[in-house]
Amino acid sequence: METVIGTSESNGPVKVRNPHIKSLSVDHLYHIALDTSDIDKLESIFGDVKFVCFGGQPSRMEGFVKYINKELGLDTHGPCPQNYAAGTDRYCVYKAGPVLSVSHGIGIPSLSIVFNEILKLMHYAKCRDVTFFRIGTCGGIGLEPGSVVLTEKAVDGEFSHFYKMFILGKRVERPAIVDESLVQDLEACAREDDEFRTVRGITMCTEDFYECQARLDGAFCDFNEQDKMAFMQTLKENNICNIEMESLGFLALCRHAGIKGAVACVTLLDRLEQDYITVDIPKLKKWQVRAQTLILRYIKKKLGIECGLIPSLVYPQTIWCY
Amino acid sequence: METVIGTSESNGPVKVRNPHIKSLSVDHLYHIALDTSDIDKLESIFGDVKFVCFGGQPSRMEGFVKYINKELGLDTHGPCPQNYAAGTDRYCVYKAGPVLSVSHGIGIPSLSIVFNEILKLMHYAKCRDVTFFRIGTCGGIGLEPGSVVLTEKAVDGEFSHFYKMFILGKRVERPAIVDESLVQDLEACAREDDEFRTVRGITMCTEDFYECQARLDGAFCDFNEQDKMAFMQTLKENNICNIEMESLGFLALCRHAGIKGAVACVTLLDRLEQDYITVDIPKLKKWQVRAQTLILRYIKKKLGIECGLIPSLVYPQTIWCY
Repeated sequence: METVIGTSESNGPVKVRNPHIKSLSVDHLYHIALDTSDIDKLESIFGDVKFVCFGGQPSRMEGFVKYINKELGLDTHGPCPQNYAAGTDRYCVYKAGPVLSVSHGIGIPSLSIVFNEILKLMHYAKCRDVTFFRIGTCGGIGLEPGSVVLTEKAVDGEFSHFYKMFILGKRVERPAIVDESLVQDLEACAREDDEFRTVRGITMCTEDFYECQARLDGAFCDFNEQDKMAFMQTLKENNICNIEMESLGFLALCRHAGIKGAVACVTLLDRLEQDYITVDIPKLKKWQVRAQTLILRYIKKKLGIECGLIPSLVYPQTIWCY
Repeated sequence: METVIGTSESNGPVKVRNPHIKSLSVDHLYHIALDTSDIDKLESIFGDVKFVCFGGQPSRMEGFVKYINKELGLDTHGPCPQNYAAGTDRYCVYKAGPVLSVSHGIGIPSLSIVFNEILKLMHYAKCRDVTFFRIGTCGGIGLEPGSVVLTEKAVDGEFSHFYKMFILGKRVERPAIVDESLVQDLEACAREDDEFRTVRGITMCTEDFYECQARLDGAFCDFNEQDKMAFMQTLKENNICNIEMESLGFLALCRHAGIKGAVACVTLLDRLEQDYITVDIPKLKKWQVRAQTLILRYIKKKLGIECGLIPSLVYPQTIWCY
């Protein structure tokens, strides 16, 4: 069912919550190998960004930017899109028109670094009304593998929805609260004739892939099948429908930054049935595009609604709008 | 000053602490794109591994394996060493004789996944007497940039030396205790005529690079220069001499696995002086080799002592031993 997205309120200019960076003559965005020595150049390259899509693997984010380029009719870079972070192999940063495609590695600490630096980049480039997405993979709970989960709340391994950290030796907690209107808008991008289901639910965000996700096939395991299944049932009863490793930090960072952010992940297996992925590579690749497709539909809708209003979104190529 | 390393007791065969993996017909080491469908092949490729060296960046670990190949006279792979994890871009795995060189990304969650899978690989390949190292970069506290720090204890942001995680909803704490004899052996690999200092000390392991490390140049900052400096002084008074993002998990995982493990990091800046790295790239590259050099010396010494005893360590090429 096609639904028209309501216009969400603007986020305005991307701000950083740090008064000190004003005093830096040059800011080194060290882990993405960029700096502010030529800030006009940053603005000319990145100033039109409206959507920042993060995902774990560099190759997947390169594939995503090709997909966006093709779908938005912006395929001007040929088969090899430019990696703006090519000066390092820690992360990659690709761009397709108003869409930035960024790899974040695995886990919240890895994600937090590139989040900080991309946020600063968006600020220096004078970007406005930017929405962030994490597009990932996950284990599902009681869902057919290949389903897409939209996170409506992220919790950690003790069912707390706070991203906890120590700053200057003191514990700081930041809530991982989802932008509800954004989740609704994304949900409305699902179609009845999709080959896959799109659901919304609570996401458990863990600190490792094996023990913390109750897997029986890691190098360490002090529990048995029954313990695992009892835990999985507890998750199900608490409306947790998928498990991954970044959503809690991502959503807390988005909220702390005043940025609208959402998480869309495809389930690669049903953890009520198995611990390891058995699906073949071609199907896996097909599934990985599903969450990307949902975000692409949202982006297209937003461009369709707003392309008459924001000059930077008018491209020489025709943008196909709903 | 050259010191002869005492023979540390053997670790014996690499074990996994998980009874369930015996029942797996094929174990998928998913994130390094290997599996156990041909376990004899795994043993023939990896069975002689004695030293596993982890580090953050793929390119650095590729550089390290080239360095090891050259220094051990094993340069049989030419300029492009084989990446055994080439089927994925999450991590890389290179090998030079008895040395495995593995990238771990950034942060404990990222490290923990590859640690689990490499430990299982070593187990399946029937490796014995294996030592693990993390060779990294860090911020120093009151040390000349370019110094090498050997971690004698790792603590988190609240000065606790426990790696904390939630397993089946319950909090589990595992101590990050260093193998003291290994640290002593590594310390003995430093030389009086080295261009750099090698020190031992407590390492603070944080969950992010900016706020948790008291940096004033992230996207978020609620403290000022004075707060930061007061915190840095507290660290100094508590004998913390460097800050990075993996040591706590790495050492706790090593201990939990019954593997001897140590962390050697080079300081890229002095956090009492600055927040961002200003050293030029050639010097940075030179510095990054320093911690690698220390580990290489240890490996050479061990091979020199043991190469007459362990047949798999006798290579066609001459190994230069102390």
